Amino acid sequence: MEAQLLNHIRSLPGTELIGDDAAVIGDRLITVDMLTEGVDFLLAEADPRWIGRKALAVNLSDIAAMGGIPRWVFMAVALPRYPEVPLRYTSGSLGDASGSLEGALELAEQLLSGMQPLIDRYNLVLAGGDTNTWDGGLVISITVIGCVPEWGVFRRSGGKAGDRIFVTGKLGGSILRHQFHFEPRIDEALHLNEHYQVHAAMDISDGLTLDLHRLATESRLGATLYESAIPIADDAIILSQQSGRSPQEHALSDGEDFELLFTVSPQEAAKLLAVPPFELYEIGELTIEEGLRMVTAEGTVTPLTPRGFEH
Amino acid sequence: MEAQLLNHIRSLPGTELIGDDAAVIGDRLITVDMLTEGVDFLLAEADPRWIGRKALAVNLSDIAAMGGIPRWVFMAVALPRYPEVPLRYTSGSLGDASGSLEGALELAEQLLSGMQPLIDRYNLVLAGGDTNTWDGGLVISITVIGCVPEWGVFRRSGGKAGDRIFVTGKLGGSILRHQFHFEPRIDEALHLNEHYQVHAAMDISDGLTLDLHRLATESRLGATLYESAIPIADDAIILSQQSGRSPQEHALSDGEDFELLFTVSPQEAAKLLAVPPFELYEIGELTIEEGLRMVTAEGTVTPLTPRGFEH
Repeated sequence: MEAQLLNHIRSLPGTELIGDDAAVIGDRLITVDMLTEGVDFLLAEADPRWIGRKALAVNLSDIAAMGGIPRWVFMAVALPRYPEVPLRYTSGSLGDASGSLEGALELAEQLLSGMQPLIDRYNLVLAGGDTNTWDGGLVISITVIGCVPEWGVFRRSGGKAGDRIFVTGKLGGSILRHQFHFEPRIDEALHLNEHYQVHAAMDISDGLTLDLHRLATESRLGATLYESAIPIADDAIILSQQSGRSPQEHALSDGEDFELLFTVSPQEAAKLLAVPPFELYEIGELTIEEGLRMVTAEGTVTPLTPRGFEH
Repeated sequence: MEAQLLNHIRSLPGTELIGDDAAVIGDRLITVDMLTEGVDFLLAEADPRWIGRKALAVNLSDIAAMGGIPRWVFMAVALPRYPEVPLRYTSGSLGDASGSLEGALELAEQLLSGMQPLIDRYNLVLAGGDTNTWDGGLVISITVIGCVPEWGVFRRSGGKAGDRIFVTGKLGGSILRHQFHFEPRIDEALHLNEHYQVHAAMDISDGLTLDLHRLATESRLGATLYESAIPIADDAIILSQQSGRSPQEHALSDGEDFELLFTVSPQEAAKLLAVPPFELYEIGELTIEEGLRMVTAEGTVTPLTPRGFEH
């Protein structure tokens, strides 16, 4: 949420906004995420099933960020009554019916069909929703309710100075492919929650440096990244050939990686690295000194400006 | 939700859609409702504070329909980055800033400001949300989480043959004013839940006959309405002068009354009518014979076609 608005909302009476990826109400976790056409996807370029999958997966990633168990799904959707663009990927009835109410209903079915593999894999329940048609673009808002595991939840604010910082996958270039096809880190988060002492966690949705800055700030700390340890996705390299920015810049600031970002004590870090339970990269450490820094391969320290996607 | 889509969704694996106004998960109630520009409001004609109020109030009405206690609010919003229409009702900074990101943020603040009286009155907590800006119209999706009271919740399916049907206010013409200014029947529903045996309940959001048909169908029954007992709102009379339809037609089929529609045994009905705890109208009864009928003032019985707003 935009920082200025967030500050305004926090000042309102009756507000209990926390700085985490999901709200905790008793033994339940609640997260709400909305995707809008033209910002989060292009209906002319993305298969509607990818869009449906993404709308659910970003919410599951929020539950993973808390170390929780996702369970119930609610979908509210505003469907374009008269899609202005041809639906490139649709076949059969949806293609024929575009530009009509039937087209909108077929679109809704495709969105749901894209969610189905995640619903099956994580044993979720589609428990409600609200379907609307209108003369605007496609908007999907998903609410996911999860359960707090017996080991509690992860918070952004629990980081301690000296903690080692980890990510669960390579970063950058998500816009090429990963944004639609990433696997939310539910299994990894639950494994970490059960077997390790995680101090702080979140998911990387707006860019590594921007999100790490948020985690460090919530923990009242700063962070140092090791330049040579930042794992760079192949798509960050491909994208850099078009963008003129370096692959590393993409890894540091591109949004929608949806990897887990978490911190543990040096002792837990050693345990994790001795026998990594899944793909893991140690990329830096939390520091008493506030702000972000990077240690280059040559050993020099340079300040890092948090960059990423601002809502 | 559109009937055809609802049937499709119900056929999917992992789906537990119920026919009620909110989902019940343990001792919590969850409801999600989305409002879209051009369908649920016109940004050019409605004060953004009314829109914010309505977005929350329709969800509170769903919680009231279940006899529940609303508690936590989550707001996901897609804000027009460049509103295409001048914001007629806005004053000061919003007017100056329209057509910019600042304008979008001011709009969000106005939406929240419209919700504030309901948040205060019902002791709600704004617990999270997702704010987006895009090049489309205004979309607000609200999730409300409530508590199941010790007396349980109302269902649409609990009606019994012979039950008397009640509504909590006059009906029709809501589009003129009531759609933005109605009071969700939280207090009335909780009073009924605590002190009376309510068999079935819902809120009238899509029109009396359409919603009554849904309640009767969920209860595997039909219903008879008493023509002379249908309470007609003043605005239904005013609207009929423009629409060419009768005030009664408006009362029977206009959407967005947001009154409680509920059924009780004849004994409970007598108790309610002896000392009405609030505004109440007995309008008919549930019948073994399926479908809807109306008994006219002259005593003749005519079939009624369910009419109202289809999503």
